[in-house]
Amino acid sequence: MQQNIINIRDLEFQLFELHRVDDFLKYDRYADHNRETLQAALDLALKVAEEEFAPHTRLVDEEEPIFENGRVVMRPEVKKALDVLRETGLLAASQDYERGGMQLPSAVGQMCVGLLKGANVGTQAYAGLTIAAANLILTQGSEEQKTRYAEPMLSGRFFGTMCLTEPHSGSSLGDLRTRAEPAGDGSYRLKGNKIFISAGDHELSDNIVHMVLARLPDAPPGVKGISLFIVPKFLVNDDGSLGERNDVALAGLIHKMGYRGTTSTMLNFGEKEGAVGYLVGEPHNGLAAMFHMMNEARIGVGLGSVMLGYTGYLHALEYARERRQGRPVGNKDPQSPQVPLIEHADIRRMLLTMKAYVEGGLSLALQGARLVDEKKVAQTGEEQEMAAGLLDLLTPLIKSWPSQFCLEANSLAIQVHGGYGYTREYPVEQFYRDNRLNPIHEGTHGIQGMDLLGRKVSMAGGRYYQELLRRIAATVDEASSDPKLADNARRLAATVESLKEATDCIQAVKQEGQVERALANASLYLEAFGHTVVGWLWLRQALAATKGLDEGGPQPAAFYEGKLKACDFFSRYELPRVQGLTQLLREVDATALEMEAEGF
Amino acid sequence: MQQNIINIRDLEFQLFELHRVDDFLKYDRYADHNRETLQAALDLALKVAEEEFAPHTRLVDEEEPIFENGRVVMRPEVKKALDVLRETGLLAASQDYERGGMQLPSAVGQMCVGLLKGANVGTQAYAGLTIAAANLILTQGSEEQKTRYAEPMLSGRFFGTMCLTEPHSGSSLGDLRTRAEPAGDGSYRLKGNKIFISAGDHELSDNIVHMVLARLPDAPPGVKGISLFIVPKFLVNDDGSLGERNDVALAGLIHKMGYRGTTSTMLNFGEKEGAVGYLVGEPHNGLAAMFHMMNEARIGVGLGSVMLGYTGYLHALEYARERRQGRPVGNKDPQSPQVPLIEHADIRRMLLTMKAYVEGGLSLALQGARLVDEKKVAQTGEEQEMAAGLLDLLTPLIKSWPSQFCLEANSLAIQVHGGYGYTREYPVEQFYRDNRLNPIHEGTHGIQGMDLLGRKVSMAGGRYYQELLRRIAATVDEASSDPKLADNARRLAATVESLKEATDCIQAVKQEGQVERALANASLYLEAFGHTVVGWLWLRQALAATKGLDEGGPQPAAFYEGKLKACDFFSRYELPRVQGLTQLLREVDATALEMEAEGF
Repeated sequence: MQQNIINIRDLEFQLFELHRVDDFLKYDRYADHNRETLQAALDLALKVAEEEFAPHTRLVDEEEPIFENGRVVMRPEVKKALDVLRETGLLAASQDYERGGMQLPSAVGQMCVGLLKGANVGTQAYAGLTIAAANLILTQGSEEQKTRYAEPMLSGRFFGTMCLTEPHSGSSLGDLRTRAEPAGDGSYRLKGNKIFISAGDHELSDNIVHMVLARLPDAPPGVKGISLFIVPKFLVNDDGSLGERNDVALAGLIHKMGYRGTTSTMLNFGEKEGAVGYLVGEPHNGLAAMFHMMNEARIGVGLGSVMLGYTGYLHALEYARERRQGRPVGNKDPQSPQVPLIEHADIRRMLLTMKAYVEGGLSLALQGARLVDEKKVAQTGEEQEMAAGLLDLLTPLIKSWPSQFCLEANSLAIQVHGGYGYTREYPVEQFYRDNRLNPIHEGTHGIQGMDLLGRKVSMAGGRYYQELLRRIAATVDEASSDPKLADNARRLAATVESLKEATDCIQAVKQEGQVERALANASLYLEAFGHTVVGWLWLRQALAATKGLDEGGPQPAAFYEGKLKACDFFSRYELPRVQGLTQLLREVDATALEMEAEGF
Repeated sequence: MQQNIINIRDLEFQLFELHRVDDFLKYDRYADHNRETLQAALDLALKVAEEEFAPHTRLVDEEEPIFENGRVVMRPEVKKALDVLRETGLLAASQDYERGGMQLPSAVGQMCVGLLKGANVGTQAYAGLTIAAANLILTQGSEEQKTRYAEPMLSGRFFGTMCLTEPHSGSSLGDLRTRAEPAGDGSYRLKGNKIFISAGDHELSDNIVHMVLARLPDAPPGVKGISLFIVPKFLVNDDGSLGERNDVALAGLIHKMGYRGTTSTMLNFGEKEGAVGYLVGEPHNGLAAMFHMMNEARIGVGLGSVMLGYTGYLHALEYARERRQGRPVGNKDPQSPQVPLIEHADIRRMLLTMKAYVEGGLSLALQGARLVDEKKVAQTGEEQEMAAGLLDLLTPLIKSWPSQFCLEANSLAIQVHGGYGYTREYPVEQFYRDNRLNPIHEGTHGIQGMDLLGRKVSMAGGRYYQELLRRIAATVDEASSDPKLADNARRLAATVESLKEATDCIQAVKQEGQVERALANASLYLEAFGHTVVGWLWLRQALAATKGLDEGGPQPAAFYEGKLKACDFFSRYELPRVQGLTQLLREVDATALEMEAEGF
């Protein structure tokens, strides 16, 4: 049952030849692992993805969960798939042994979940959110909270959610109004309304652990007055058994264009006596706590976008190889047989564009996951700080770039299918709808752009940004000495140069105090930066492919040649986009900023 | 009941200040018309669009037509809306009086239908296809066919369809297999299967007139052996009354991601004794006949894309003005009230991008419609030839550019709405799904690119292409003398220069006999060409706005200022895209062409 989730050769190439995840195996944390155990985890995840998740992808899109008599009712295939997943232990793939985890490198753990995303993003979300919520407790909670809530989440007995957004407070989290009053016994009583809570209600697990942002009575206004709480659907007794139903009510479901298998809920906390909640970490420190896990959550969103784009690409590739339509330019004989679509130059260009986007996106997401690992195994404080800083810098790109360009890959997958592509009889239109949510999930491009340009680039005096440029320059140097890659190296160097100039111009305007103008085109800066970084990763893929060719690596020659071609493609077809953007950015253009509202 | 279909000021500006449609009123054909009658037709169309079409847009998306006991069953609102439309006479807006038409200029007639597209593209398609099919009979059919079929179509008693595609023959029309055998009485009997036939069955009109491409027994292979037939659902007696049911059977419905209100059908012709059909025009000349009306059909698709983008833009604009979220950069006071979204630079940039795309797209579609009018009223053969040639040249752009960039506007409309944007509780996600069909309808970007670069640019020795460049240069000259526009004029001139260079490089490679390589990036050439032409139209809009400001034109100053700003925006943010594309095109890059199928 081939489900077109991923090209296994590419996955192996990226994990082991490009990102060299097996380098980590020398560290104590991964002492029990070897190449085979990593492979076994991925094989297991792929098997579950293909056999349990992929088959009902369309079904949960067509028959989305409904709200009936106060309950969420959904297709039984969802629970069945998640029950199988729970048994594999993969929910805790990267967690510590002592929490019931497998202690797999993050890149492998993320990829295990990524395969489920590619197979069925709607069903996967219940698991993905649980992992994120558990991570939050594990990094921020007390030992008791870890045992009582996080461990049952990692084993899949409880599932989790993130409750941030309120009807009047989306991106502007500082304006949230949910209140938490101390109950006198160390617990709190919460009252407020949350919206867009994915997986906010269901009967897929024994319990649901909501991670809720709310304000304490003495909270300062804005983002500095937000605290984080655990609010379980059912209270949890000391022995881990379930107690009373908490005062959390499902107020309704939201109906989306994609991810239709995942309930998106409105939840009312404290309609009656107040929902029982437990403070996680320090008072008023909730947003910082939330951001602590956001790097991984954002890598998760980015990887999800990649995987949706990837499966669309593979479906389009298969279709282009099988479907016969028309004849090549120059063949004037109408009686000659029609050729497969892939023989047409424009189809091949679209497939190569998709390949460049999805494989480039995958290497970007895995670069992020690799930095998570580097942080974990760092031998010195300095190494750890640098890994953490680079990860912070790249996170907005990892979140945004795939959600822009792998969505574009999904659009191209429709285009390759022609009229069939937009019918619900073929799978690619659903991937396109599903992926359209990702440019908004976990912060829009606008938010990510402000984060990158307003904070990350200049963080620590620009240290991480400089280090990234240094690493890119090292790759350029290495590639320059290979005649096959020198041209691409030169193009990347020119691209980096234009990005640097743009950055300098913007920083100068910022230092003059024109902060609003400096940040006005932050989204476009994000796009230019993302393309540059993906161009770097493509050049590294080309170097790894060259090595594979020269040293007789594990993949067939045609695979490595395809990588070289895709690198050529990215540097010739895609990098020029950066020049166009940086032209504008260098001028720190204020056209949009100065547009009068009445002029629209 | 404001439905956010169009900005009336912009419509009036584009029709009367930019494209000066009232210039045509001096010709005999339009002698009965004046500015008021044109306005009255538009007002009527807008009223029908707002009152009858828009209110059930979501309804037909959610409850699409179903196939029940061999019949198509759909929401009653569709018939009600089309019944009202029929009474207005707008189906024949641009047709001759003698056929029951209003003899309105094409730009106005197209726009009347365009307003319906913006309101409810699914319901509108029944009307749009009827107009297209009637046009085909009026330009290619016999007098008897015009009376018997086209006139009842123009009055709305019959509706029409286009039956081109077959399961194995989509873009490659030359491979179609439906056969037509002479019956001996001048009629034919057709047998074959058609797919993706929009509006292929329904009970909205007394009869359905299918325009069917099929092969005669002695037909040469390929596109030179295709003939065009009228195949009515019910035979039509000499007195115009309906006779027997013809042998055309509905085999099933196709389910799409958008345009869900329009049935997309599989039709079987001649399951029993053969479907009765009547040859239109000469044998084996069907494709040429079809292409004869395709210019207008393609303008229709382009305008439809514009209108879907336009309504998305207006919804996003309204939302951005009303929804309060966050505070401007630099305001650190969390207790200050949240500001409307439109106050944020990134939101304003997205709105301005949308404005540039949809108003630019509208001016492009109307430029096409204007050329249709110029063709009709031309006083000399030369004038007529030039209008026809320019229209031929621009048609692939008019079809493609809006379906790429106004779709992008729909995506931005979602983005402006944040999480609400992807919910079905808000309208913008439907516009995005609806518009995603248009890059495929009436020929993909790939097909349009080949048409532009492979045929249109070099047609008549490049005469029309040269004339277009000459007209652009004239606009550049005019704008150069205005200090406020000189910078934009310079940018456009540089863009045109790079497009010309790319064209020359490609033509040189073509002349060396490397046709496949020359055409390999035709889609990107189409994109670069489209952006250049829209840049030209934006500069013309800026000139017209300047005139409006200087001479106290009918619109408020803020409106004209907004146009100037949007022109700045297009030339600063969008034209650089052309430089990136032409860099690649100048090199006549063959990377994608040379990619081996095994490399993917």
